[in-house]
Amino acid sequence: MKGKTAKESLTINTEVVLPNDTNHIGNLFGGKLLQWMDITSAIAAGRHSGRVVVTASINHVSFDNPIKQNSVVTLEAKVSRAFTSSMEVHIDVFVEDRITGHKTKCNEAIFTFVAIDQNGAPLPVPPLIPETEEEKKRYDGALRRRQLSLILGGRMKPDEATELKALFAKD
Amino acid sequence: MKGKTAKESLTINTEVVLPNDTNHIGNLFGGKLLQWMDITSAIAAGRHSGRVVVTASINHVSFDNPIKQNSVVTLEAKVSRAFTSSMEVHIDVFVEDRITGHKTKCNEAIFTFVAIDQNGAPLPVPPLIPETEEEKKRYDGALRRRQLSLILGGRMKPDEATELKALFAKD
Amino acid sequence: MKGKTAKESLTINTEVVLPNDTNHIGNLFGGKLLQWMDITSAIAAGRHSGRVVVTASINHVSFDNPIKQNSVVTLEAKVSRAFTSSMEVHIDVFVEDRITGHKTKCNEAIFTFVAIDQNGAPLPVPPLIPETEEEKKRYDGALRRRQLSLILGGRMKPDEATELKALFAKD
Amino acid sequence: MKGKTAKESLTINTEVVLPNDTNHIGNLFGGKLLQWMDITSAIAAGRHSGRVVVTASINHVSFDNPIKQNSVVTLEAKVSRAFTSSMEVHIDVFVEDRITGHKTKCNEAIFTFVAIDQNGAPLPVPPLIPETEEEKKRYDGALRRRQLSLILGGRMKPDEATELKALFAKD
Amino acid sequence: MKGKTAKESLTINTEVVLPNDTNHIGNLFGGKLLQWMDITSAIAAGRHSGRVVVTASINHVSFDNPIKQNSVVTLEAKVSRAFTSSMEVHIDVFVEDRITGHKTKCNEAIFTFVAIDQNGAPLPVPPLIPETEEEKKRYDGALRRRQLSLILGGRMKPDEATELKALFAKD
Amino acid sequence: MKGKTAKESLTINTEVVLPNDTNHIGNLFGGKLLQWMDITSAIAAGRHSGRVVVTASINHVSFDNPIKQNSVVTLEAKVSRAFTSSMEVHIDVFVEDRITGHKTKCNEAIFTFVAIDQNGAPLPVPPLIPETEEEKKRYDGALRRRQLSLILGGRMKPDEATELKALFAKD
Repeated sequence: MKGKTAKESLTINTEVVLPNDTNHIGNLFGGKLLQWMDITSAIAAGRHSGRVVVTASINHVSFDNPIKQNSVVTLEAKVSRAFTSSMEVHIDVFVEDRITGHKTKCNEAIFTFVAIDQNGAPLPVPPLIPETEEEKKRYDGALRRRQLSLILGGRMKPDEATELKALFAKD
Repeated sequence: MKGKTAKESLTINTEVVLPNDTNHIGNLFGGKLLQWMDITSAIAAGRHSGRVVVTASINHVSFDNPIKQNSVVTLEAKVSRAFTSSMEVHIDVFVEDRITGHKTKCNEAIFTFVAIDQNGAPLPVPPLIPETEEEKKRYDGALRRRQLSLILGGRMKPDEATELKALFAKD
Repeated sequence: MKGKTAKESLTINTEVVLPNDTNHIGNLFGGKLLQWMDITSAIAAGRHSGRVVVTASINHVSFDNPIKQNSVVTLEAKVSRAFTSSMEVHIDVFVEDRITGHKTKCNEAIFTFVAIDQNGAPLPVPPLIPETEEEKKRYDGALRRRQLSLILGGRMKPDEATELKALFAKD
Repeated sequence: MKGKTAKESLTINTEVVLPNDTNHIGNLFGGKLLQWMDITSAIAAGRHSGRVVVTASINHVSFDNPIKQNSVVTLEAKVSRAFTSSMEVHIDVFVEDRITGHKTKCNEAIFTFVAIDQNGAPLPVPPLIPETEEEKKRYDGALRRRQLSLILGGRMKPDEATELKALFAKD
Repeated sequence: MKGKTAKESLTINTEVVLPNDTNHIGNLFGGKLLQWMDITSAIAAGRHSGRVVVTASINHVSFDNPIKQNSVVTLEAKVSRAFTSSMEVHIDVFVEDRITGHKTKCNEAIFTFVAIDQNGAPLPVPPLIPETEEEKKRYDGALRRRQLSLILGGRMKPDEATELKALFAKD
Repeated sequence: MKGKTAKESLTINTEVVLPNDTNHIGNLFGGKLLQWMDITSAIAAGRHSGRVVVTASINHVSFDNPIKQNSVVTLEAKVSRAFTSSMEVHIDVFVEDRITGHKTKCNEAIFTFVAIDQNGAPLPVPPLIPETEEEKKRYDGALRRRQLSLILGGRMKPDEATELKALFAKD
């Protein structure tokens, strides 16, 4: 199966934070942002695989910067690595200053999708060809994250996670 | 500040999966489930603290079992541990068989919230008093998860994560 | 057909009143509350019968206490009596004080559902076994409400409504 | 305060039943219809009073005819009687045959609204002047329904409900 | 095919502008009004033809008067002319003063629909019989607008648009 | 006021067509697409001006290609010309083939926005600097479209529309 570049799956979404998306001090709900992330990254995974995809897992996400009502939020998703039938997708979230137009990165998340057929059985997906420095770094990190995911899901023993253990060993 | 039991923050939500919540083979979108999880657990954290709360982070979530359109989905959220101004909340998700009424656990997630004042500054919250065996187990695990969260967020060095390192050491 | 207790159909929903749910002095629309009541009680009737159910009627509902934007609203629905193929469901609605957590009952409604097959034909449902004092009282009142419903729907003559007439006679 | 005719408050709404408005055999949810009824009749009461209005109560509603997905539903609401600060509104619901255009009445409901000021205190509303035969019949029936409403709400004793008692006596 | 009057397709919708329908200075989004216009006029075209209809084009629309949050907006749509399988529909939009009930026309738009069968192939529709002065004027103008639409869509050359050219010639 | 390039206002949105967005033969509603166009182009105009913007008008839009449920739709909006306080924005709409990823242009629309202050008064906006061939062509056409818009809105006499008249003269 012929590989595809990360750029080919790039999916961009631009949203405005409306009153119903915010709590009563006017900050965007975390759950709403997660929903936007899921839609945007699912389209990216669909573009990479040309298949129906389902969300398999999301990794740790932190919400450090409150996003205010009326903000313009841009989500950019790209496949960062493909395994047999699963794809890891990175989503970068930016908020922009209305006056200066300056964009600030305010969140980042990693979702994993599986390509499936009509009965829900997994289908093979093309390998991912990283091009930029950042794409290569994310590609390399994907294996470690996959091990962590398998451990947290109870499907791998911690001492089998060679790459992840190195994280602790090197300190 | 007087402690509160986990039971006092128990929040239950019952949802029906509608057409717009599903992809084109009729499975619930992961992002929609995340949004329901966020709302339910935010109410639980609000009940524990009596404060406005904001989502601070979510830990790893996996979606192993597809949930079909028209399913009845029940979400149960309870605070599992409170730190100075943050609260870890566990959400258990169940799908039930329409005919037999049998409930199957299909997902589990952990969200962390911070109690804030009108200016977004953190406020102290009551300690959590675990009662059942499961509540005690989740209470104990919260410290380890907090370390992992701090490492992944770049705010703690791996070798300071005493509890987490033990996870790898003991294997 | 084996009976079921009211507790077995208990369905709980917890909602937050968002800006779009309120009129311009910030009170929850009556129609939105009715919609939440319908969903919650339909799930309860579905749990009792294990069948697809449709709303057959709602009885008189009054909205005495305004519910403000951002309030946490809890709905609790339980089947109160089952007839051949119809089920009466009671819904109790509570609003809670954010700071003290004190819950106040603010509404109560009674919806009736019919269990149907794929063609819309009625199907038999299990009898209801009341257990608590309140469940027994609601069970007994269901017959009188059914007569009132039939009269108001033009399907029973007032003087056939033995139980209902007693309401006026005893004064 | 100068009276107004029923016609002056006539409010018409035309809705299409979408997938998310229906259960899984494709029938409109009762709760969705109730929400449409509430919005339409609230606008009618607002037109009669020129004030902010809140839903005070709804009387018995029955759902005899299932409404299918894609149906065109028309709601027509008119104030049927005004009391000091409350207004009774009748809503007639029609479904039309797509091909012949023939409209069939499929539901009818009565909502009561109260006109309020910014603090929620009741405000006086103009009297209602019925014109057609049907408007006069609904105007006359309003008093009896009001008594029933007060009894069901525990604010009137059954034997004080002179008009309502006559309903049973005359059989 | 027997003709139908414009009145037979009259479709009325009454909407309240909610928080999520407005930008951050509280004015109704143009796109939301366009969506309401499309739904209302599609129902009118469906009533005229007794068929499934799809939006074929909209002509120039201007938004001169801002509509504020909480406003009551009434849309009235009527078929203004029918061609072989297409129908031109005029939509008039009114905003009313809450206190006086005075309605002001604030927008006007023209949408064109095509009646289609299950495969999307066009179906013939009844001719339109204009009755009032305004209906006749709109009926006459429809031909000129159709020429403009064909030119703008690149399907007619400007010098074939006899009626439209007259518009410039007569000045 | 310093000019800005078209590229600086580029706004991209990627949407999936859900069941509630379609009519009963599964085609996207025209009104829904208009709403997506309005949001996307309003953000582009906001990016160009750094101001709150309101929709002033939309030009003729035709819907030639039905868009099916589950399709991935991409909207790309860029300011094509700026006048004193108004901005013309072009929106290109693409549908992509799920398997091959091939994108087909299926719609194009032009919306005009005005930059305003808190009281709704117009504010000056930066001039637009076209760069590509297509941007230059759209920039040149904007004057002619503006004249047509003023004529259709009754604010310019046809014989004052020098550029527009040339369109007819040159044939």
